[in-house]
Amino acid sequence: MPEGFSFSAVASGIKKEALDLGLIYAEKPVQGAGVFTSNLVKAAPVLLAQGLLAKRNAFRAILVNSGCANACTGEEGLNDAQEISSYLAQKLNCLPEEILPASTGVIGERLPKEKIIEAIPPLIEGLSPDKYQDFAKAIMTTDAFPKIASRQIEISGEKINILGIAKGAGMIAPNMATMLAFLLTDTSLAQDKIYKILKDTVDKTFNRITVDGDTSTNDTVYLLASGYKKKIEDRNIDSFKKALYEVCYELASFIVKDGEGATKLVKIKIINAENENRAVKIAQTVANSLLVKTAFFGEDPNWGRFLAAMGRAGINFDPNKVDIYINEIKIVENGLGTGKESENRAHLEMKKPNFVVTIDLKQGRAEAQYLTCDLSYDYVKINAEYRT
Amino acid sequence: MPEGFSFSAVASGIKKEALDLGLIYAEKPVQGAGVFTSNLVKAAPVLLAQGLLAKRNAFRAILVNSGCANACTGEEGLNDAQEISSYLAQKLNCLPEEILPASTGVIGERLPKEKIIEAIPPLIEGLSPDKYQDFAKAIMTTDAFPKIASRQIEISGEKINILGIAKGAGMIAPNMATMLAFLLTDTSLAQDKIYKILKDTVDKTFNRITVDGDTSTNDTVYLLASGYKKKIEDRNIDSFKKALYEVCYELASFIVKDGEGATKLVKIKIINAENENRAVKIAQTVANSLLVKTAFFGEDPNWGRFLAAMGRAGINFDPNKVDIYINEIKIVENGLGTGKESENRAHLEMKKPNFVVTIDLKQGRAEAQYLTCDLSYDYVKINAEYRT
Repeated sequence: MPEGFSFSAVASGIKKEALDLGLIYAEKPVQGAGVFTSNLVKAAPVLLAQGLLAKRNAFRAILVNSGCANACTGEEGLNDAQEISSYLAQKLNCLPEEILPASTGVIGERLPKEKIIEAIPPLIEGLSPDKYQDFAKAIMTTDAFPKIASRQIEISGEKINILGIAKGAGMIAPNMATMLAFLLTDTSLAQDKIYKILKDTVDKTFNRITVDGDTSTNDTVYLLASGYKKKIEDRNIDSFKKALYEVCYELASFIVKDGEGATKLVKIKIINAENENRAVKIAQTVANSLLVKTAFFGEDPNWGRFLAAMGRAGINFDPNKVDIYINEIKIVENGLGTGKESENRAHLEMKKPNFVVTIDLKQGRAEAQYLTCDLSYDYVKINAEYRT
Repeated sequence: MPEGFSFSAVASGIKKEALDLGLIYAEKPVQGAGVFTSNLVKAAPVLLAQGLLAKRNAFRAILVNSGCANACTGEEGLNDAQEISSYLAQKLNCLPEEILPASTGVIGERLPKEKIIEAIPPLIEGLSPDKYQDFAKAIMTTDAFPKIASRQIEISGEKINILGIAKGAGMIAPNMATMLAFLLTDTSLAQDKIYKILKDTVDKTFNRITVDGDTSTNDTVYLLASGYKKKIEDRNIDSFKKALYEVCYELASFIVKDGEGATKLVKIKIINAENENRAVKIAQTVANSLLVKTAFFGEDPNWGRFLAAMGRAGINFDPNKVDIYINEIKIVENGLGTGKESENRAHLEMKKPNFVVTIDLKQGRAEAQYLTCDLSYDYVKINAEYRT
């Protein structure tokens, strides 16, 4: 576990299903960076955090609540988030600006400020380096399981730790919401690189998953680096990036696996594309197609749907050159089906809980992948329930 | 009914559910125009028709088959379509180039050419001006009902008829597929205007509906003008355009109403936008959001989902100015919820089979609308069934 951090979690009664306040605390100021939702409609904690990160790069704590997104709450919502940070800062003996907020839950309702403030003293009392699992549970909403991933790498004889904790099960869940991830490490990074490293990693992991194609108002990924271990030098940066990617990729897979109602985790892999952006765009369109996702649920290698989704991605390619595989089974060669026998074999592959759809464009050398899940009855059930 | 056309339909045994060959025949060459799928992957009949329409503007017949899309079938698929047209032309005593093809059904399978050719003689024998309903039934796939709309307008004392027949229930249905529409009129139009009139009308009607956001490889709209009545002069063109729009809008609503598994027909209306394109983009994103569509199914005025979908449309607007209505009930004012009481009233409006979501951006004077439906268990059921 990365040194320099403690965790805590309490139930303040905002929601019944789980604990609902989580705190990550750093003993001394630590480096921080954040990547946020691209949605034009941004929740109050996102707006507050973006303001903080624009001005400073040292932080002491992350406070997360589940049950209420504090989104579409206007000026009052911003004030609520600020008041809670001020109270926490006073109790932690730090500046309000050193606290990064995150919220997930219903949009359009005010935070239960008093309840949260009441819960802060026991939250602080409970701080401990071992309580990261409690924290992971506290931030869950419709999540079926807590999401934790970690890596240890050795650089110049020193062991460096990365811990990641995430929540998310639908881009915006019914009552609850959002994808949040908290990445902690005990090294430090060049200040001018930390944001870029985080952003690049998020773009290749959390930004390449889909459950329902919707983007939350609250999506947030924070990276805190405590600096207990030696700073990462430029020549070792790739080892660090690789480990951070692995942690993020694992958390991203957990989110899709836990997709609302999902029964399959499917990797859409585009190979031999002209460039990476085009590969991403095609992968994304296939990954979000309702007809593709229902075909996954039906375990049907209905490749016409894959090609039809690719064709509306807005990217030029030659349909008559495309090969498509389900795991190792080739079901399309040069744009034509390879026959019933291979479809039957592909159908068997699709009975597995995880499989890969590989699409070969034969255009160039770039590739990209996207993680998605199937669309089941339960997705509709979870999301169609009336909120009250 | 427009003069100069006859219809016929027969079952050739391609599919069991309905008749599966439909023919529209014109006694003498008639003006024709077509608008096709924007999907890069285009079915053989679409490629064939695009080639014909690029070279000529007079036609004698439209031949439609349901059960097989003849898409992703390569050179052989094109040859199949051409051979069928040649045989039909010989029997009708016209040129193969005077026949416009359309197909809907499974992607990736060859047309049962012999069966279709065998069915052509009885198809021709059956031709009659009264059989348009049989034709409408023959082209159905997962459609629950045949889709027919018509208008009669009077121009300079002469009665002009427009008849529209369509099929479609999902953009690409499970086994079956596609949106097809056939528009017939007994007037004629300036040759340099006919395509533009059709294209503009399609853009505002069939291109502003969604069931699942997928675009078929086979989507086709044909307009044939027999010229039995006086030609439409420029000063009367708006009356004709209005009537054509109404026919297309009515057919488009039927398609959404018949959306696979749909229980609600919802109009998303964006008002006071900066320009029409931006209004369309926002309406489209809201209309396609799974979370919005499941909220419709759940009759839940979950306006946070509407705002969140708008926010990812890639269009700039001020979330703090937005008002949202369900029918006449205002549920959002200046980006904030108007309270539980109005939500409860909106919930009652959403129990109706049709309702309107109006979104006021307060940016400018442009507006646009999009028709969508809810996402139900049955959509998943219909689309997740294994094809065999």
